[in-house]
Amino acid sequence: MIPSRVTIYEVGPRDGLQNEKGVISTEVKVEFIQRLVAAGLPIVEATSFVHPKWVPQLADAAEVMTSLADRMGDAGRDLPVLVPNERGLDRALELGLKHVAVFGSATETFAQKNLNRSLDEQFAMFEPTVKRARAAGLDVRAYVSMCFGDPWEGAVPIDQVVGVGKRLFDLGASQLSLGDTIGVGTAGHVKQLIGAFTEAGMRTDDLAMHFHDTYGQALANTFSALQEGISTFDASAGGLGGCPYAKSATGNLATEDLVWLLDGLGIEHGVDLGAVVATSQWMAGHLGRPSPSAVVRALAGPA
Amino acid sequence: MIPSRVTIYEVGPRDGLQNEKGVISTEVKVEFIQRLVAAGLPIVEATSFVHPKWVPQLADAAEVMTSLADRMGDAGRDLPVLVPNERGLDRALELGLKHVAVFGSATETFAQKNLNRSLDEQFAMFEPTVKRARAAGLDVRAYVSMCFGDPWEGAVPIDQVVGVGKRLFDLGASQLSLGDTIGVGTAGHVKQLIGAFTEAGMRTDDLAMHFHDTYGQALANTFSALQEGISTFDASAGGLGGCPYAKSATGNLATEDLVWLLDGLGIEHGVDLGAVVATSQWMAGHLGRPSPSAVVRALAGPA
Repeated sequence: MIPSRVTIYEVGPRDGLQNEKGVISTEVKVEFIQRLVAAGLPIVEATSFVHPKWVPQLADAAEVMTSLADRMGDAGRDLPVLVPNERGLDRALELGLKHVAVFGSATETFAQKNLNRSLDEQFAMFEPTVKRARAAGLDVRAYVSMCFGDPWEGAVPIDQVVGVGKRLFDLGASQLSLGDTIGVGTAGHVKQLIGAFTEAGMRTDDLAMHFHDTYGQALANTFSALQEGISTFDASAGGLGGCPYAKSATGNLATEDLVWLLDGLGIEHGVDLGAVVATSQWMAGHLGRPSPSAVVRALAGPA
Repeated sequence: MIPSRVTIYEVGPRDGLQNEKGVISTEVKVEFIQRLVAAGLPIVEATSFVHPKWVPQLADAAEVMTSLADRMGDAGRDLPVLVPNERGLDRALELGLKHVAVFGSATETFAQKNLNRSLDEQFAMFEPTVKRARAAGLDVRAYVSMCFGDPWEGAVPIDQVVGVGKRLFDLGASQLSLGDTIGVGTAGHVKQLIGAFTEAGMRTDDLAMHFHDTYGQALANTFSALQEGISTFDASAGGLGGCPYAKSATGNLATEDLVWLLDGLGIEHGVDLGAVVATSQWMAGHLGRPSPSAVVRALAGPA
């Protein structure tokens, strides 16, 4: 049941850096992404073509992708980027990118706050984005946020999450990433949610899990999802990132902590742990604070 | 298979405080223990009768236990204490205590360093301690440390751990607590170790698991152990404590993070989460640094 191989979908450069308060130079972002690719991470989400008004930290998205294409060629254009809407997609198409992701909400309140749309209206926004991307030969990933709990609505009903996820997937996505955006989910809930998706006809190969460690549950949730047959996990190098809607500063599951678990289980992943740890330490130097990853801290020693 | 009820064995006042660099007053320790008992923690290991030369932080062990007996009566004398040897047991007997614990090693090197005995010689030291305690009507818990990895020897063979554990248990212990002292174990290893103990004839009810979060694995390991039927888990309020033999400062599994997992799984534990969080915040104030528990930080907000 537990997969023999797992794909780590690295989100540090996008999900990790989008909440950073300080300014990170384009040069540092590009080097961060290149180092992660060199460390063996098979997919590195590079940035987001969101309007700079909402995420000023990623205002240099086009420069980042242009620089990566210059340095890496097609491998640079293969790196996925988040596109919130058709305008974001236009920018990705102009640069010749091949993989985009859209970011939906499982709850009404977060749809209103993050997308300025109702839960239902988000599909009308995503439909032309996904359809045009597919028509242009692009691959589309769909994120569903707030799949476990929502800061305003509390626990999110599983049926509701499955309904939103299926509708998004059926627009033409190749993978659905189910996010515990505020990190409140636990291992039993994970099992139930995945079971509900497979009962609704989705394959575990079409699902990825995106955990946050806000309540320390991310790896227990990962182990639960592995046992349900999930083989793609989102993670952020060094545990970079945080949810602006949760009180705590702790953020994404750290790539290094995930690798430690997978190594212990004998699950292949192709990632060089030492290279990721070194990259996270290097990035921590640029950010001016130690990595929240337990593995990075354990291997690097106290800050 | 997953138990419907779990016993949390609180080790914060002993395992958590023994590595503290600063001085904690006897008064604060006693209040800490009383607050943990009041929060519903069914077992709170209060201190250690180790020689003050080795653990100066717990040099006031007798004062702590006398104060607790004065304030709580028999409930105070029921709180377990660590006794490294017969001299420690003598002190526990003088105070009329009812529950003691001994602390063995699964590896040769750690036995030498921590006990100044060989792996084999430790049993000769523990035998009279356990036998005299039992003869006096006391209950004895046996810790086995370094059950997964050892900083000097690397991975510890499962057969060796089972051999040491069984020998310790057979001296007359009522429970064996299997410790991942440096936090390197992972979920699959946990399953294998528990399986090896049950194959060797031990019941899961006789086993407790003692995880450290040094590499972020403690809750994933807990979820693995729950699935193997383990129903007693050691934890430390606020995640207090650290292993002096691991590079990182991160320590014991936090009681609050464990409670969050158990609540999500619908497993009974009888602990008031809010009361433990409040106690950990109060203790963090005395220690002068924020709790490493993710749940404490998430509920309390950034420090």
